[in-house]
Amino acid sequence: MPTYTAPTDDYKFLLHQVFNLQNQANVPGFEEATPDLIDAILDEGGKFLSEVIAPLNQVGDREGCVWKDGEVTTPPGFKQAYDQYCESGWNGLTADPEYGGQGLPHVLGTVFSEMISSANLSFGMYPGLTHGAYEAIVRHGSEEQKKLYLPKMVSGEWTGTMNLTEPHCGTDLGLMRTKAEPQEDGTYRITGTKIFISAGEHDMSRNIIHLVLAKIPGGPEGIKGVSLFIVPKFLVNEDGSLGERNAVSCGSIEEKMGIHGNSTCVMNYDGAVGYLVGQKHKGMRAMFTMMNAARLGVGIQGLSQAEVAYQNAAAYARERLQGRSISGAKNPDLPADPIIVHPDVRRMLLTIRSFTEGARALATWIGIQIDLAEKHPDPQVRKECEDLVALVTPVVKGFLTDAGFESTVMAMQVLGGHGYIREHGMEQFVRDARITQIYEGANGIQALDLVGRKLPQGFGRLLRRFFHPLLDFIQENMSDPAMKDFIMPLAKGTAKLQQATAHLAEAGMKNPDEMGAASAEYLRMFGIVTLGYMWARMAKVANERLAEGAEPRSYYENKLLVGRFYMQRWMPDVSSLFVKMAAGGKVMMSMDQDAF
Amino acid sequence: MPTYTAPTDDYKFLLHQVFNLQNQANVPGFEEATPDLIDAILDEGGKFLSEVIAPLNQVGDREGCVWKDGEVTTPPGFKQAYDQYCESGWNGLTADPEYGGQGLPHVLGTVFSEMISSANLSFGMYPGLTHGAYEAIVRHGSEEQKKLYLPKMVSGEWTGTMNLTEPHCGTDLGLMRTKAEPQEDGTYRITGTKIFISAGEHDMSRNIIHLVLAKIPGGPEGIKGVSLFIVPKFLVNEDGSLGERNAVSCGSIEEKMGIHGNSTCVMNYDGAVGYLVGQKHKGMRAMFTMMNAARLGVGIQGLSQAEVAYQNAAAYARERLQGRSISGAKNPDLPADPIIVHPDVRRMLLTIRSFTEGARALATWIGIQIDLAEKHPDPQVRKECEDLVALVTPVVKGFLTDAGFESTVMAMQVLGGHGYIREHGMEQFVRDARITQIYEGANGIQALDLVGRKLPQGFGRLLRRFFHPLLDFIQENMSDPAMKDFIMPLAKGTAKLQQATAHLAEAGMKNPDEMGAASAEYLRMFGIVTLGYMWARMAKVANERLAEGAEPRSYYENKLLVGRFYMQRWMPDVSSLFVKMAAGGKVMMSMDQDAF
Repeated sequence: MPTYTAPTDDYKFLLHQVFNLQNQANVPGFEEATPDLIDAILDEGGKFLSEVIAPLNQVGDREGCVWKDGEVTTPPGFKQAYDQYCESGWNGLTADPEYGGQGLPHVLGTVFSEMISSANLSFGMYPGLTHGAYEAIVRHGSEEQKKLYLPKMVSGEWTGTMNLTEPHCGTDLGLMRTKAEPQEDGTYRITGTKIFISAGEHDMSRNIIHLVLAKIPGGPEGIKGVSLFIVPKFLVNEDGSLGERNAVSCGSIEEKMGIHGNSTCVMNYDGAVGYLVGQKHKGMRAMFTMMNAARLGVGIQGLSQAEVAYQNAAAYARERLQGRSISGAKNPDLPADPIIVHPDVRRMLLTIRSFTEGARALATWIGIQIDLAEKHPDPQVRKECEDLVALVTPVVKGFLTDAGFESTVMAMQVLGGHGYIREHGMEQFVRDARITQIYEGANGIQALDLVGRKLPQGFGRLLRRFFHPLLDFIQENMSDPAMKDFIMPLAKGTAKLQQATAHLAEAGMKNPDEMGAASAEYLRMFGIVTLGYMWARMAKVANERLAEGAEPRSYYENKLLVGRFYMQRWMPDVSSLFVKMAAGGKVMMSMDQDAF
Repeated sequence: MPTYTAPTDDYKFLLHQVFNLQNQANVPGFEEATPDLIDAILDEGGKFLSEVIAPLNQVGDREGCVWKDGEVTTPPGFKQAYDQYCESGWNGLTADPEYGGQGLPHVLGTVFSEMISSANLSFGMYPGLTHGAYEAIVRHGSEEQKKLYLPKMVSGEWTGTMNLTEPHCGTDLGLMRTKAEPQEDGTYRITGTKIFISAGEHDMSRNIIHLVLAKIPGGPEGIKGVSLFIVPKFLVNEDGSLGERNAVSCGSIEEKMGIHGNSTCVMNYDGAVGYLVGQKHKGMRAMFTMMNAARLGVGIQGLSQAEVAYQNAAAYARERLQGRSISGAKNPDLPADPIIVHPDVRRMLLTIRSFTEGARALATWIGIQIDLAEKHPDPQVRKECEDLVALVTPVVKGFLTDAGFESTVMAMQVLGGHGYIREHGMEQFVRDARITQIYEGANGIQALDLVGRKLPQGFGRLLRRFFHPLLDFIQENMSDPAMKDFIMPLAKGTAKLQQATAHLAEAGMKNPDEMGAASAEYLRMFGIVTLGYMWARMAKVANERLAEGAEPRSYYENKLLVGRFYMQRWMPDVSSLFVKMAAGGKVMMSMDQDAF
């Protein structure tokens, strides 16, 4: 059975040494997040997830969720583990103390979300979706709604969902048919069918707060006529107690490739009572709040599967005796060497690990920016951080899930035939990771968001938030010989990315299809360069620590090795991706659609 | 439910126009393979596979094989379809007429193996393994063994298996423990456990002829002491009738990621009667005959899954209405445009298709070389073809399965969330394709075979069989303006591949680990350049046909478009792969194994 150990050392390195969270103590919410508290959270949280949540991952996959007469039973052990999770207070880690949360920085939620997803992606989705619904209500709901719903969502007693997709509309929400008819009492009656609703129905919580997009009849056509509603499974009385059952039900659950432990529901709304969140017809704005947070979360899910797959592949490679090193036996007294002696096995493992450690740095960096965007006292800093987060969100979602999935495939390969057998659990990581490239906007949509919306926004203002500090960093470290292996490839990759950006702006101006034709390669270039930047920053700190004589030396030395590997084996793709995108869209657009 | 249409037009183009099979009529076995006969086989075979075998693919996945008390039941419909398959004579297409086969060129078997695997990979494995066992016996068995076993294996009444892997040894067969004790009557008693035995037990055929590797006690240590045995499930009387049950049984079947319709068995040999094939201790040589054919077959399986996944993704993209073209509505009268208007959807589809059409050309080319290696009247030609096949075998296995798997992932992505749902069948292609990268030697082993065995063989003689005609082709077409888009990238890629080869030879001489460290990238470079060569050859023929005014013009025009796309979006990887491999193995080898 696969195991999971939370990468707490890595997070301590990132939070305390690379991004110096302690320097942000002037930001509200950070003052209490002392290094000691953070370390305690990492250690305790990691232990809980490894010991309680991770062992349920295979059970969840094998048993799955069971639908019967509209009720969904989660896999054995899920409900008990969820209760334990809530009782330990993990659900409200970053939530507002006004609603019972602990008010810790969002970045700790980011950290926790990687760990819970590694331990058990299906399980982590239940609180993850609650958190998304919490965010939408806390930002867009009325005071009354906040007081009524949030405390129990923070405690975990109630969970949440997001209802967007319909059978005929996924990406294109303007085609939505679910309607919300206004009632005299100010409520609405919601009617329609939503599909692919994660955690739409289950037995983990006493109530489920559905956030539902629907159209109020007579409103504007298409996407501009969409509003957001709270539709509780059980209506909530004024005192917070549960009232009668609402007219929403789960019609069936999907049989899927993976994430069997999470229920993916068809939700039928038959005149269910709904409460408008925010303004009429402004539902997409509120939904985007949820979606952007969710997109970052899904990116981190991609990383999470790569991490746990790596850990188990590395353990296998150290233990499995098979064949001999081609440069001479390394274990002459045993019948064979462990397969980790083989360069190609190391190549696979280091390809994954140089991705996960870089991706973890990116997730942490962006997690901190989200906090600063919300809470920094200087409005200029807030705006800059918000811009950066907006720019990088599709990159985190797209690149971390694509490379995360590829990592699980590679980790499975390390086990050879045993990787294909279910009991080893490696193929589950592949099947589970696969959804992350799809939900919360398929990765093609992320690429289009990056090139079509984020790049032109503010005449490139968002881009400057990224390139300026990156170019400054390169400049500052250019002459440091200890940084040469990092700065040279990073500088080259950054130059290519700038060139690609200019190319895209020019080509896209003439023909928008040219932006679409280049978008996937551009997003990947952006992702690879961004992780390169993260690696260079980590390398700088590792070099400094080694120079200071910090212990354990091997931690910093290995960090530099893995970083060098990244520079050697990931960065070169930037150049070929540029050549591909520069080929343009003419050939692909000239084929007749019936000829495909 | 997914559907499958055999790519018969493509095969006709390849066999008749690109590789001119009719020009080989002086080779025994080819004289009867007239274009009309070939076309009839393609059309009839394709129809049978689409109508009878493909509809069982999802059933096989859902129901799987069921083990009970040592017996294995295949999914509903498999047995009846297999009977129909045998009755129609498809099983003996390329087998020797002496044993009831039709004696047609091997290349038609290659073609048929792509089609049957696309239709239903799990199903196709049953006759595929029989074919492998047939090959081993026909080449290495005694006259008596051939007469006794082959006719019923050719008719399909009996099936075959290959038994190599044991729980503690997969890649490293020298560690094998299964033993074969010689008896006074000249037979052997086989004792041991084999795992991962595809089609090891099932209800499709009346007898199963296991080919088993085992060690005769007292023989040489390691791989040099391995012998090959025929171990029938039911002993066969001299008159060919079935005798008593042999002491071989199926202990269990594996729960796997995919290919659920094929039984993957633990086989227990408890003093089972076995018959030596070929010489004592020379089992690996005989096994390699089977394995090389099987490796090519598995490469083609990779292609096959890409093809069927492409067909279904393209159909979805043409039909699914969602969103609008970013360059303006293409279907203004409908609520949305089909998603095929989006450049990124086209990019995904053409990435797959430019791979499958190139891979199909490669499979066909190599299929013909296998025939010529066996049957050409000129021994020099035979040797040259044999060399080329030996060189390219690991490339076909490794590259066609890696890119084939990646293609299924991309095809699934075209369907968005619907791709993740089992009923659409797209995720099954991903799960089924995944095994092809693993079995018959994981792709890391293929890469090592290429750089460690095939490259140095005969001081680079094998390489010359590949590079000479390729360089000649480039030279001949360099000045043709209609070929410029093909020849320029091909020439560049070929130069890089030559440079990589020289680099590898030099670095590997100093330190064998350097070969291992570069092997995966080198194999992929080799694969991409080889498909580039195939595309250039197809482009040349398509240009010629267009110049002649051949119909339908759109076929040749689309061929050129898809080929151009390949040159633009696949070939650039050759350069970045070279940069990666040139970085060497120092970093990866210097990390302590406990630090992974």
